[in-house]
Amino acid sequence: MIGVDQEFAGKRVMITGGLGFIGSNLAHRLAGAGAKILLVDSLIPSYGGNQFNIHGIEDLVRVNIADIRDTHGVSYLVHGQDYIFNLAGQVSHLDSVEDPVTDLEINCRAQISLLEACRRRNPEVKLVFASTRQIYGRPMHLPVDENHPVKPVDPNGVNKLAGEHYHLLYSELYGLRACSLRLTNTYGPRMRACDARQTFIGLWFRQIVERQVISVFGDGTQLRDFNYIDDVVDAFLLAAASPNSVGKIYNLGGEPVSLRALAELLIELNDGGSYRLVPFPTERKAIDIGDYYGDFRKICSELGWRPKTALRDGLRGTMEYFSSYAHHYW
Amino acid sequence: MIGVDQEFAGKRVMITGGLGFIGSNLAHRLAGAGAKILLVDSLIPSYGGNQFNIHGIEDLVRVNIADIRDTHGVSYLVHGQDYIFNLAGQVSHLDSVEDPVTDLEINCRAQISLLEACRRRNPEVKLVFASTRQIYGRPMHLPVDENHPVKPVDPNGVNKLAGEHYHLLYSELYGLRACSLRLTNTYGPRMRACDARQTFIGLWFRQIVERQVISVFGDGTQLRDFNYIDDVVDAFLLAAASPNSVGKIYNLGGEPVSLRALAELLIELNDGGSYRLVPFPTERKAIDIGDYYGDFRKICSELGWRPKTALRDGLRGTMEYFSSYAHHYW
Repeated sequence: MIGVDQEFAGKRVMITGGLGFIGSNLAHRLAGAGAKILLVDSLIPSYGGNQFNIHGIEDLVRVNIADIRDTHGVSYLVHGQDYIFNLAGQVSHLDSVEDPVTDLEINCRAQISLLEACRRRNPEVKLVFASTRQIYGRPMHLPVDENHPVKPVDPNGVNKLAGEHYHLLYSELYGLRACSLRLTNTYGPRMRACDARQTFIGLWFRQIVERQVISVFGDGTQLRDFNYIDDVVDAFLLAAASPNSVGKIYNLGGEPVSLRALAELLIELNDGGSYRLVPFPTERKAIDIGDYYGDFRKICSELGWRPKTALRDGLRGTMEYFSSYAHHYW
Repeated sequence: MIGVDQEFAGKRVMITGGLGFIGSNLAHRLAGAGAKILLVDSLIPSYGGNQFNIHGIEDLVRVNIADIRDTHGVSYLVHGQDYIFNLAGQVSHLDSVEDPVTDLEINCRAQISLLEACRRRNPEVKLVFASTRQIYGRPMHLPVDENHPVKPVDPNGVNKLAGEHYHLLYSELYGLRACSLRLTNTYGPRMRACDARQTFIGLWFRQIVERQVISVFGDGTQLRDFNYIDDVVDAFLLAAASPNSVGKIYNLGGEPVSLRALAELLIELNDGGSYRLVPFPTERKAIDIGDYYGDFRKICSELGWRPKTALRDGLRGTMEYFSSYAHHYW
């Protein structure tokens, strides 16, 4: 336990979406730091929550199964927390196109309930919201900084943006200590990997571990940036611990890499495998954003965050994890 | 009937919020152009709908009382329309702070239902959405153009932005012919004037006509731009008629004027009256945006719109209207 982790020793920390990919990794880290952890998760099938994600820390966390749309339940649970990491969400872009209203209920309306509950029952809490680079839509320039115009390409982006705005608004109107991190592609152990519902890279790990051919959409030249989960956990802890983050938005981000180069790197690290270029399915093409990588200088300078894990190391660690625990993930 | 008005002769036009300020003025103009007009309005008390607003054209329009949150009703009504002017909304900033969920239901969720209905039942319709400069929040630079970062200062701004994004999204994903106008302060006959619920300037007309003292918040030096209703109606008709507007956002805007100068001009035109500077009420200060005026060059160059009515003429016309019809408005 070093640096920022000490801040959380003995603190009461609630994580919405706590059995999900990022939430559970945060929980592992915070358990090591001696925090009193409450994980709130709906375990809606296909949303990414997985009981195995807390394997090894079951006795160090309290799990409360609840949907963040449950206004009364949430209102009770926020009481007395020192920190809330607000990660629960509908995260599938395609699902949001099929059912925008459900996405709205979770990513927007439930956020209002949570914030109202904090304002009324726990106005001193520090809140960190998990936002997304999806809200920018197709970049007008690269890298994309926090002032880049927003033009979401799917309902998920619209609703996440509104959810983020509510956090900043409650900070402004009521002095609630909330901030938002705009995440880019996060990968690592405990991510949903059975299919491409959340992100293609989850499925790629499954494909490489199962010795299937990796499917790369389009010509594979599109650029993206990736953050390893440990670096993203760092960012959440720094944002929570710093008084400077209140009312702010921060991009995360990393070195841009083409999808093709990423697939090749996975194959190299795996000592074998293959990929093929496949045309974009129509429904994915409609919401694809082309090249993207984020400008993360603001969080570097204000919170001292930078990604530390080389892509190569992160991919290797993730493959090892899924090689060991595949049966819990697909 | 000249120019763009001819486009609407014999066309089926639906106006949501059709008994409100802007909706009813559109109806008067379209009635003159020979359109087949359907006005949809909930007549929720205090939202601005007023039966007197269609005085003189009662026989030229069809009125359907319905709330845009009524998914089934809206789904039926959109069928067969050539144009939809989508103006229904919760418009009070203060009310949105008190009750963000109702604002969300109207300005965001109901918009999804309307767009889904159009996509499924009337994919050829042309839709013009009434958005607002409120979504920009406090200007980072002036004048504010369409690429200015958005940072709403109240739930109404968050929800209107999401509602606007949905229109653009359905244009992008489904080819729906939708566009959005970001309105600034609109004033003129038929506006809600009994109180400052929608805009301070409505109340000012009442105060000047009733020979009360006009209340100017703060030091009165804050700049705003104003559009007379006839110019705003022009913008809606041009946006509806032009194939170039699809998928686009346009600011309206006008000459900046300080609130103090505006009050003085009203008093001059009225040959009497007075104003006083009063401190901002706390709840209004929290959501005040300081100076604002919009850059409207995009709509000038793409749709040929510009405001034609001098402030002096517009104010005079509005005062005359309310002098004649005060009892229908307060």
